[in-house]
Amino acid sequence: LQLTVHVPGIAGRTYDVVIGAGAAAALPRYLESAAPAARYAVIAPDDVAEHAQQLLDVLRSAGRSADLLWFPAGEAHKTRDTWAALTDRMLDLRFGRDCAVIAVGGGVAGDVAGFVAATYMRGVPVVQVPTTLLAMIDASVGGKTGVDTAAGKNLVGAFHPPRLVLADPLFLRTLPDAALRDGLAEAVKHGAILDEGYLDWITTDAGAILAQDPQALEELVAQSVRLKAAVVREDPFEAGRRAVLNFGHTLGHALETCSGYTVSHGQAVAMGMVLEASAGEALGVTEPGTAERLRAAVRACGLPVAAPAVDADALLAALRVDKKALEGRVRCVLLSRLGACAQDEAGRWTFDVPEAVLLDAVRADHRI
Amino acid sequence: LQLTVHVPGIAGRTYDVVIGAGAAAALPRYLESAAPAARYAVIAPDDVAEHAQQLLDVLRSAGRSADLLWFPAGEAHKTRDTWAALTDRMLDLRFGRDCAVIAVGGGVAGDVAGFVAATYMRGVPVVQVPTTLLAMIDASVGGKTGVDTAAGKNLVGAFHPPRLVLADPLFLRTLPDAALRDGLAEAVKHGAILDEGYLDWITTDAGAILAQDPQALEELVAQSVRLKAAVVREDPFEAGRRAVLNFGHTLGHALETCSGYTVSHGQAVAMGMVLEASAGEALGVTEPGTAERLRAAVRACGLPVAAPAVDADALLAALRVDKKALEGRVRCVLLSRLGACAQDEAGRWTFDVPEAVLLDAVRADHRI
Repeated sequence: LQLTVHVPGIAGRTYDVVIGAGAAAALPRYLESAAPAARYAVIAPDDVAEHAQQLLDVLRSAGRSADLLWFPAGEAHKTRDTWAALTDRMLDLRFGRDCAVIAVGGGVAGDVAGFVAATYMRGVPVVQVPTTLLAMIDASVGGKTGVDTAAGKNLVGAFHPPRLVLADPLFLRTLPDAALRDGLAEAVKHGAILDEGYLDWITTDAGAILAQDPQALEELVAQSVRLKAAVVREDPFEAGRRAVLNFGHTLGHALETCSGYTVSHGQAVAMGMVLEASAGEALGVTEPGTAERLRAAVRACGLPVAAPAVDADALLAALRVDKKALEGRVRCVLLSRLGACAQDEAGRWTFDVPEAVLLDAVRADHRI
Repeated sequence: LQLTVHVPGIAGRTYDVVIGAGAAAALPRYLESAAPAARYAVIAPDDVAEHAQQLLDVLRSAGRSADLLWFPAGEAHKTRDTWAALTDRMLDLRFGRDCAVIAVGGGVAGDVAGFVAATYMRGVPVVQVPTTLLAMIDASVGGKTGVDTAAGKNLVGAFHPPRLVLADPLFLRTLPDAALRDGLAEAVKHGAILDEGYLDWITTDAGAILAQDPQALEELVAQSVRLKAAVVREDPFEAGRRAVLNFGHTLGHALETCSGYTVSHGQAVAMGMVLEASAGEALGVTEPGTAERLRAAVRACGLPVAAPAVDADALLAALRVDKKALEGRVRCVLLSRLGACAQDEAGRWTFDVPEAVLLDAVRADHRI
């Protein structure tokens, strides 16, 4: 059984996210309609060698012309240099305009290989084959590609939606448990901001998900992709509504920074969601009891509900450089209740939240 | 008096090419509707300092926030390194997503600054202010941006149509005569493939054009942009019809290469057009007398009708690597008559032309 979710691309086009345990074996068949090409460049970081090699074998067995191009794994290599080296390798191998790129790996692979595809001979198709839960449910929707520079993350890039995303939960078996839980934090976020029933299901079935039950994982990926796609469809140009996807990320990013990145992104977002729900309750925007139920969901997913102690001044400094900050005032996405976000008096999906309220939420949680 | 031509962009959008002597002074007014931005990055090569500085002054006088970013002039600097350096400079200057790029200069500036805009924070608007005739009538339509690599020209890039092109013929006063004539070769091409009346007008009024009569230049740019835009509109994805823009370029590129680039692109295209018309006549595809009239037009524009002697084997080798070559056979765009291109029996806009026919055309012209 394979699930397919239609996702908005750009200029009115859509693409499919195909989800299924073992779906990787059917890649050639999906390519035939979604991304026919004379030749395929399979681009992968060197830490997903097994999956990339499997996909290459699948393609070649089906009579497709394909080559494997490696790059060094890790966010540190999500650079213009890696992009240029991959591009030059494709040119050396004489890939023409009639080729397509297949990006295999986590978020970094999708971003950097996607940017290679976006700019190779002014753009060739890309197919994303995510191998982490986070990439399956997050990077698979939105069409963003790019690389980091010394000045910051994702500052250079392009919108280049894939022709197809193939999410095979069997690929997650090689993923460390901690990385699986990190991805789960984003799924919890999708439930928290958009669908209370989905959040309840995650809380109840977290055991099956963490044990990598294929059906549970398929359902999780499909539901998260559906929810994120609905938000992107409503706000394709990031004009407003799409901001709700930043729930938990204002305090989350700040905690991540203050911890010196000893706290992972998923862990930080998990804590950030609980704390921003507390702040929302304190402001009378969020239904009382919301933070407690979110805390239960986070705990069920094996994610930390307690952050390392951080310095209040450092936290404030980190909050003030947040991208969502307006004229120096910190902005947060706030829930009205589980499954729904609140709008401020001007109809915006982020709120001015006094720094004292955020600090109080962190203090009440015994983090300062 | 300013002329405006609507040009197809991508995804059904269009943009305006505004043409007028002195139009540069009105840039702030045009930006208001076409590319409103919190801040402008004016990007220019260091050989158009005067024009770039003038535009900066115009913007600042109108109360716009603008900065000037230089890069070294010349095709040798149309590289990923220049692109990365300009991007980093914009990041250093803290340009946000709400900025726009203004590309000032010839084709190289449009390509490299356009690619900076295409990829800065996943894409910001670009406005093109061409300062060469070739950029005004050629690069201003099509939305192509990009840079060269060691493997070849324009191998990395993006389709990123400008929000506005502002073509001010007064900028051409600093252009060397040879560069003006080079641009004129492409205008002759537009007439030859699409509009006999336009070709006749160029032939008759070449004197006024070369003397930089403002009204003649405005008319020339407007008419060429209109003609090229019509072709791009018919074939936005370069599937077929757009190939007609390559008339004169098969032999032109080969002569350019064989001359060791002592012959300029415009000169080579001028010769290529006359010779491909001769070849078309020899094949019975092109109306007799066409080559002779084209030769007269080219001569009126002060372009050479005689190429330097080239080696036949070198010419054949250069012809065989042409992008339009199919399975090793040389393909040419052929006219049916002045103002109209011919289609082969399969409906294609390029023809298999036997190498002997091309060599004969060159020989008859006393070039070998």
